[in-house]
Formats: sequence, structure tokens, C-alpha cells
Amino acid sequence: SAASTPIRATLFPGDGIGPEIAESVKQIFQAADVPIEWEEHYVGTEIDPRTQSFLTWESLESVRQNGVGLKGPMATPIGKGHRSLNLTLRKELNLYANVRPCYSLPGYKTRYDNVNLITIRENTEGEYSGLEHQVVRGVVESLKIITRQASLRVAEYAFHYAKAHGRERVSAIHKANIMQKTDGLFLKCCREVAEKYPEITYEEVVIDNCCMMLVKNPALFDVLVMPNLYGDIISDLCAGLVGGLGLTPSCNIGEGGIALAEAVHGSAPDIAGKNLANPTALLLSGVTMLRHLNLHDKAEQIQKAILNTIAEGKYRTADLGGSSKTTEFTKAIIDHL
Amino acid sequence: SAASTPIRATLFPGDGIGPEIAESVKQIFQAADVPIEWEEHYVGTEIDPRTQSFLTWESLESVRQNGVGLKGPMATPIGKGHRSLNLTLRKELNLYANVRPCYSLPGYKTRYDNVNLITIRENTEGEYSGLEHQVVRGVVESLKIITRQASLRVAEYAFHYAKAHGRERVSAIHKANIMQKTDGLFLKCCREVAEKYPEITYEEVVIDNCCMMLVKNPALFDVLVMPNLYGDIISDLCAGLVGGLGLTPSCNIGEGGIALAEAVHGSAPDIAGKNLANPTALLLSGVTMLRHLNLHDKAEQIQKAILNTIAEGKYRTADLGGSSKTTEFTKAIIDHL
Ligand SMILES: CC(C)[C@H](C(=O)O)[C@@H](O)C(=O)O
Ligand SMILES: CC(C)[C@H](C(=O)O)[C@@H](O)C(=O)O
Repeated sequence: SAASTPIRATLFPGDGIGPEIAESVKQIFQAADVPIEWEEHYVGTEIDPRTQSFLTWESLESVRQNGVGLKGPMATPIGKGHRSLNLTLRKELNLYANVRPCYSLPGYKTRYDNVNLITIRENTEGEYSGLEHQVVRGVVESLKIITRQASLRVAEYAFHYAKAHGRERVSAIHKANIMQKTDGLFLKCCREVAEKYPEITYEEVVIDNCCMMLVKNPALFDVLVMPNLYGDIISDLCAGLVGGLGLTPSCNIGEGGIALAEAVHGSAPDIAGKNLANPTALLLSGVTMLRHLNLHDKAEQIQKAILNTIAEGKYRTADLGGSSKTTEFTKAIIDHL
Repeated sequence: SAASTPIRATLFPGDGIGPEIAESVKQIFQAADVPIEWEEHYVGTEIDPRTQSFLTWESLESVRQNGVGLKGPMATPIGKGHRSLNLTLRKELNLYANVRPCYSLPGYKTRYDNVNLITIRENTEGEYSGLEHQVVRGVVESLKIITRQASLRVAEYAFHYAKAHGRERVSAIHKANIMQKTDGLFLKCCREVAEKYPEITYEEVVIDNCCMMLVKNPALFDVLVMPNLYGDIISDLCAGLVGGLGLTPSCNIGEGGIALAEAVHGSAPDIAGKNLANPTALLLSGVTMLRHLNLHDKAEQIQKAILNTIAEGKYRTADLGGSSKTTEFTKAIIDHL
């Protein structure tokens, strides 16, 4: 209850529109009496003048200590001499599974109704190994690494998640007809784990076919688990079915039960600071964090207020065809609590 | 004209439903007086008892000599000790570009209207290198290879195609924010070629974002060019927008101007031999072959007859919700010629 010691959670507002949408989350969580005390850290693309750093050890340690955090968008600088901060966080915090629920928002019309999918992405290896080199001039190669350990770990998480959430089917997405060894190992691990969950239907679907089926009839799928790059691609495709990354939550799960929820859309520098950003993805990500903390009542209350506000349609930000400011939309959600 | 010497073209009917849909193509082309003489070869998953082979040198040589061919579906056997025949053909014939037009069929309703996209896929390298190995137990790797030569070649083809077909925009699809060297080289080559085509708008789109945008608004794209695996994924996604692989043509372009058109759907063993298959993808692939041969009048006449038959809706095969047999649908198209 709100009267007991508050739970400490890390907050990385991030770049661009990050601070504005983080402010919206803070206000709504406070209005809902969520027993969370935020520990706010700057992590972003610009060097913080106070710390002379993009990312301090203290920021990482905050998530490790608290076990939970919420992260806004961070720009991926191209050719700035350091890797994507998103990837750095995944690596430093060993965030091995990226969970992206993707469901139709009542009252917000897209071409698809009743979408209800969960993509679970291996988040540490595969095509994201960072191992690349030039063999000879004009010939370069990238290494895709698949390990038994990481594949088992994400498969375990996917089946555990499916069972805990009353889901019926897990589909492993692959291209093992071409990458027989790497994707073959991934599938082998999924099969091993599937055997321990006889109540859950397990199937294997080739990625190209999966994309075609998702576009034709997303109801064919339920929980999808897959190597890193396929997860990157398919989770965006799924987000597109319901309106885009501005509306879909994401949560990263790390060793030892760490959870770092994040908005996976961009930092939208063009509208930053203009009170125009849509905080929905960060809000719904915050809701997944609450569920991770077993604060289900608060999660439910806030999620309903967000969805009802969008469904009502009176207050919508520009990306959803409305003309509300971020602060107006935030206030409308608070009124719906 | 039909009176002059006929053009020789190779025909690989393929596995499963292949022979039935190939028969449909032969009948329709004959009814339209197409000046083509087919050289039919068996290439498929079963060993041909006459030749004791899956794929004879004579079959390959037939395409090389004729310069054009049409290919039905070939099953990709898993663990049968030989690689996919589709890949073998690409490799042996050096089919470096796979062109897949994808447009809405009038009268056949999907969630999307007026789709009109061309995906052009690098067809020889990338994730399809076949280079994989186990590093230590439980750790495997695949090599993605990108070369300047193959990237320039497919980029040249894409811009050449765009210009020849009055297209306005070429989008290079990549994940160079992660695979900076491999996809970075691919982009560098596309940029070099783009400079020679100032009249065509060139842009670069990250694959995850591309999939989201395709699902939200396919009209944002025109011609898309990309490395092998992204092409595999995105061409299927695009096919899904208009109804699936049963309706979309494909054509492979090789060195020296070889063109091998193909239906890229499966061999559908469950309905093989039952007169139920939809020949549309193979027919429309045959039409791309005619255009490659500059037989534009014939191509136009046959394409119109196919589209009109589908639009009319009286004769449709089961996959399109109808109850016509393959032969009835074929006859209806002939009546529309
Ligand atoms: C920004 C980029 C490095 C990142 C990724 O490729 O994983 C993003 O697309 C995501 O899905 O979080
Ligand atoms: C069957 C398979 C090997 C093939 C591929 O991956 O290229 C298919 O999906 C295609 O697109 O032609």
C-alpha cells in the first residue's frame, strides 16, 4: 500500500522528447498513488556537463540495486565513436529478453482489429554480436553468434511468460532452412524447453512466412520467441499493426530478475520541448514495470485510464490525429484514473 | 510475331502442384499465340528415375542457352543431405537479383488498396553464404558476407529497373546502425549508383522501421533494394499485403541477361494432383518473362485476362475463397483473352 516504504525505481528520461514524456509518467503515477520513488539519472546522447559522461556507473548501479527501471528514448548516434546507448544498457545489465506486448487500442482504428501478440526477443547476441571485419578490400563479413545458453534462457522466459499469462501458443521464429547451424541451435533449445510445457502449443515458423501471415492474419499467433534481429524486425512490424511504436510498451528482462521497461520509439528531436509528444508508449511501459513489481491493481487502473482516454478520443496528441498537448493528454488520463 | 521462329524458353514445372500450374501456363500462352516453344525439364526434390538426378547439367544448360525460363515451386528438403534446389539454381545460374512486383489485384479485397511495390533482392550472398560452424560446444556462428561487387550489381539493376519502369524512388533497406561494416558497404554501393540517377529519389530506411511503415502505409515506398535476407523477409511481407505468395510474381536476373521467372510459393503437397491449385503466381511470373523478352503486347493481354478473371470473381480457386478447379480457372482466363 502507499503507506508502506516506497519502492525505488530508476528513471532514465533519455533524449529529445524523453524528459516531457517522463514527466507525464511521473505525474500520472503520483496521481494514482503508486508507491514508487523515482531515482532519476541522465543517460543520453549528449555528454552530461555535470558528470562529463553519457552513462555513469552510478546510473547502471541504480538499476542493478533497484532491480527495476523505466527508460525513455535514446538516440543512436551514427559515427559518434560510441555504440548505441540502448545496446550498451542491454549489455551492461545483461538484459537477455525483450518483451513487447502488442494489442489493438480500443477506439483507435487501424486496418487490424483485436491484435493481441507478445514478441519475446533474444536481446544479447545473434546479429548484434558487433563482430565484423573486412576480409579483403570490398569483402566484409558480420558474425551472427547463437549460443545454447542464451537461447535456452530466452526460450525459458518465453514459456514461463506464456504460462504465467495464460497464453496458449509459443511460436519460434527462425530461418533454419538457410542458417541450419545457428537458427538450428536456437530451435533445438526452444524444443527442449517446449517439452517441459506440454500444456502450451509449440510451433516453428520461418521468418518470411511469419511476416506474411502476420500481415494477413495476426490472430494466427500468440507468443513469438526469436533471435535478436528477427525480434527487432517482427516487433516493429507488430507495432505497425496497431498504430506504431508510439503506442506499444516494451520491457527488458535481465539476469537476477532485473526489469528495465522502455519506450522503443525514437527521441523525435524535431518536436522535443514543444509539448507535442505522445507519452503512451512510455506510460504503457511503466505499466509493464508495475506488473513486474506485482502492483497489478495500480497497473490495471493506470492502463485503463490511458486506454479510456485514447478511446474517448477527445484528447489525443498530433501523432494520433488530435491536437492535444502532452500536458493536456496527461491531465485527461489523470481525470480518468 | 507468331509467324516467325519461336523463342525457346526453359520450363521447370517443379514439385507438388508444379505440373498442374505449369500446364495452365502452357495452355494460356498457347491460346494467346505466344511465340514460345517450351523446353521442359524435370528439376525437383525427388530423384528423376530417368536421369537418376535432382538436377541435371542439361537442365541448367537449357536456361543458359535459352536465356529465359520459368520455374514452378520446388520443395526445400530439410536434412536430406542436399541444399535447397532454389538456392542451387540461384548459385549455378548466378541469378544475382530477385525482382518481386507486388500490386493489389482489382476486385480481390485485402486490408490494403493500391499497393504497388517492387522489391529487388540481392540473391547470392549475405546471410545465405552457407558458411556456418560450431566454435565450441553450444556456440555456433554464421557468416554474413557482403561484397562490393554484388552490392553494386544489384544496386545498378534496381536503379536501371526504376528508370526503365518510370518509377520515382529507390529505398535501400538496411540495418547499418548495427551491422555498420556489412550493411554499411551495401549502402555505400547504393549511394554510388544513386548519384548516376539524379532523377530518381534515393533514401535509406532501417529494416525494422521499413516493416512498420509498410504495414502502416505501403504507399510510402516504390522500389526497395536490399541484401538477401531482408529481401526474403520484406518480399513475403509485401506479398501478404495483397493476398500472399499465391498471387505475386517473381523473376530472377542473372549475369548476361538471363531471366528465370518463378512462383515463390510452396509446392503444396497436400493439394497436389487434385486440380485445386491456383496458377496465378506462376502465370504472372510468366508474364514478367514475356516482358523481359520484350513481348509487351502478349504480356499485357495475358495479364489483363488473369486480372479480369479474378476481378470478375466468378471463377476463383479455393485459396481465394472460390470453388473453381485449376482447369476451370484456366479456361476462364482463356475466355478473357
Ligand atoms: C536503435 C536500435 C539500435 C534498436 C535495435 O536495433 O535493437 C531499436 O531498433 C530497438 O528495437 O530497440
Ligand atoms: C525456400 C527458401 C530457401 C527461399 C529463400 O529463403 O530464399 C524462399 O523463401 C524464397 O524466398 O525464395
